[in-house]
Amino acid sequence: MEKVVVALDAMGGDYAPEQTVKGAVNAVNSSDEIKVLLVGKEEQIQKELKKYEYDSRLIDVVNATEIIEMGDVPTAAVKKKKDSSLVVAMKLVRDEKADAVVSAGSTGAVLVGGQLVVGRLKGIKRPPLAPFVPTTKGFSLLLDCGANVDARPEHLVQFAQMGSIYFENVIGKKNPTVGLLNIGTEEEKGNQLVKETHPLLKECKTINYIGSIESREIVRGAADVIVCEAFAGNIVLKFFEGLALTLFDSLKQGLMSSLRTKIGTLLIKPALKGLKKQFDTSSQGGAPLLGLKGLVVKAHGNSTEKEIEIAIKQCISFKKQKINEKIKESICE
Amino acid sequence: MEKVVVALDAMGGDYAPEQTVKGAVNAVNSSDEIKVLLVGKEEQIQKELKKYEYDSRLIDVVNATEIIEMGDVPTAAVKKKKDSSLVVAMKLVRDEKADAVVSAGSTGAVLVGGQLVVGRLKGIKRPPLAPFVPTTKGFSLLLDCGANVDARPEHLVQFAQMGSIYFENVIGKKNPTVGLLNIGTEEEKGNQLVKETHPLLKECKTINYIGSIESREIVRGAADVIVCEAFAGNIVLKFFEGLALTLFDSLKQGLMSSLRTKIGTLLIKPALKGLKKQFDTSSQGGAPLLGLKGLVVKAHGNSTEKEIEIAIKQCISFKKQKINEKIKESICE
Repeated sequence: MEKVVVALDAMGGDYAPEQTVKGAVNAVNSSDEIKVLLVGKEEQIQKELKKYEYDSRLIDVVNATEIIEMGDVPTAAVKKKKDSSLVVAMKLVRDEKADAVVSAGSTGAVLVGGQLVVGRLKGIKRPPLAPFVPTTKGFSLLLDCGANVDARPEHLVQFAQMGSIYFENVIGKKNPTVGLLNIGTEEEKGNQLVKETHPLLKECKTINYIGSIESREIVRGAADVIVCEAFAGNIVLKFFEGLALTLFDSLKQGLMSSLRTKIGTLLIKPALKGLKKQFDTSSQGGAPLLGLKGLVVKAHGNSTEKEIEIAIKQCISFKKQKINEKIKESICE
Repeated sequence: MEKVVVALDAMGGDYAPEQTVKGAVNAVNSSDEIKVLLVGKEEQIQKELKKYEYDSRLIDVVNATEIIEMGDVPTAAVKKKKDSSLVVAMKLVRDEKADAVVSAGSTGAVLVGGQLVVGRLKGIKRPPLAPFVPTTKGFSLLLDCGANVDARPEHLVQFAQMGSIYFENVIGKKNPTVGLLNIGTEEEKGNQLVKETHPLLKECKTINYIGSIESREIVRGAADVIVCEAFAGNIVLKFFEGLALTLFDSLKQGLMSSLRTKIGTLLIKPALKGLKKQFDTSSQGGAPLLGLKGLVVKAHGNSTEKEIEIAIKQCISFKKQKINEKIKESICE
């Protein structure tokens, strides 16, 4: 069986290379469909690898001497640090030596590198960052959450098309619903962008458009695919992370405030844990950048081995389901 | 002592007129600074009023035969339904027979009526809707959360100025911090609007501008006043409501799932209740529309007597602190 080859930016993220290397080892040890190319400072990576047992045919190390730091200006860093772990990993995808790249490094650099190094599919105007966000029904795909703000209506239509294909093939739900993020559900509501996008989505035959949805409905799973401009998407995603974390922290504080509540907490622990897991925005591994010539997955900056492993494995279905081929057929000329 | 006269749209909101009338009675019974004009269908209002004891000099009924429904198109409704409870209440403010109007009715109609009937202060370009949102430090003022989308940079500067004055006078904190809602804290981040607004806020001498803040920092109280365009503000506000409600609902479900968790729940109840109250977005009564010739307060559509009472009482400090006079001095020519 042909493996899915994932180039992992071993130096990207808060806990690299310890957690990235461990995540890669876990991935190849628990799936027979994966091969990982660990890209980064070879000496450091080898030192980490020595800690684990794994089939050495399933992990290769590709040396890269530079690292793109969180403080670097993305475009400049991608252009100048040609031997950085991120850029080298992306070149492996560009040169078809890997199917996908996974990085927990700088979001900006991943977005820029995706476009400059991996490159867009012909006909794709913008590659949206498309994370799954947790809902009471499961997950919705929210796109664009990236850094390419001030989108035009035709961009949002492509987001809807690519998002539908991705959702259908990864989640396995036929004809997923598509909603347009808006400040009201009536037709006259919205900003200029939304008003101009609405009729285009209505006309689009390849998606199951259900109209505008308000942000308060997102977490109730109002649509499988939620389309928005990147500024709005980014704000919703980060607010979700911030509020969920803060609510759990505040709850924890409240629960530790007296002996009575401490005892109560012991009893409710399973329910609390389940809830925290359900609304953990990072539980689905990384967010793909859609519409590029290969798959680019942005994992959360604070990813540990577990999230890295999930992010690597999510590349399997992307390739097996031929998502890029489907995007090309459906959208590109 | 001169009373603060509040015209209450007695017919506006999901639980009108029962809860609106009760809220008005509670307000005059618990404060000696308030007089309420109950505006709406006189017969219905009188029927409700008969249920309660109160000083009849402190509540007048002003008849209005029409009602603006939630489904009505705001601009058309405000123009056509001239004898609606909302329009009549707003005319009382315009004609200086009341200091403020409170309505739990259609947000769109309140926003339109505020501009068309009450009117903007000279020099104010747009009246922002400015709710307090709960944070771990207390409250932040988030503006604009209204329906006037696609703002220009000079609008956001006025929002910052008006928001600072409002926050300083209502919360009593000198020189409140002002943040600009953005998708990153670095200067090069943001959409066109944010990039153009940033230098203007920096130059503005009358505010304490601290730069961009990300949405994940809102709930940690990163700034006292958070300035944004209405589409973004509205999305954050409604997402906050939706997520907080959903998390509490899901927690409740989890807690009721077994005998063990049920017993635990009894023990932690006080902590849970406190948390729910802390993150209740409607706990601060209504959201003011700033920059109008009189105060206009939009209460939540599902307000009960308690929220109506708070919304009525929040009009006191607005008048006593001469907030409109301060806005005029600081901004208007």
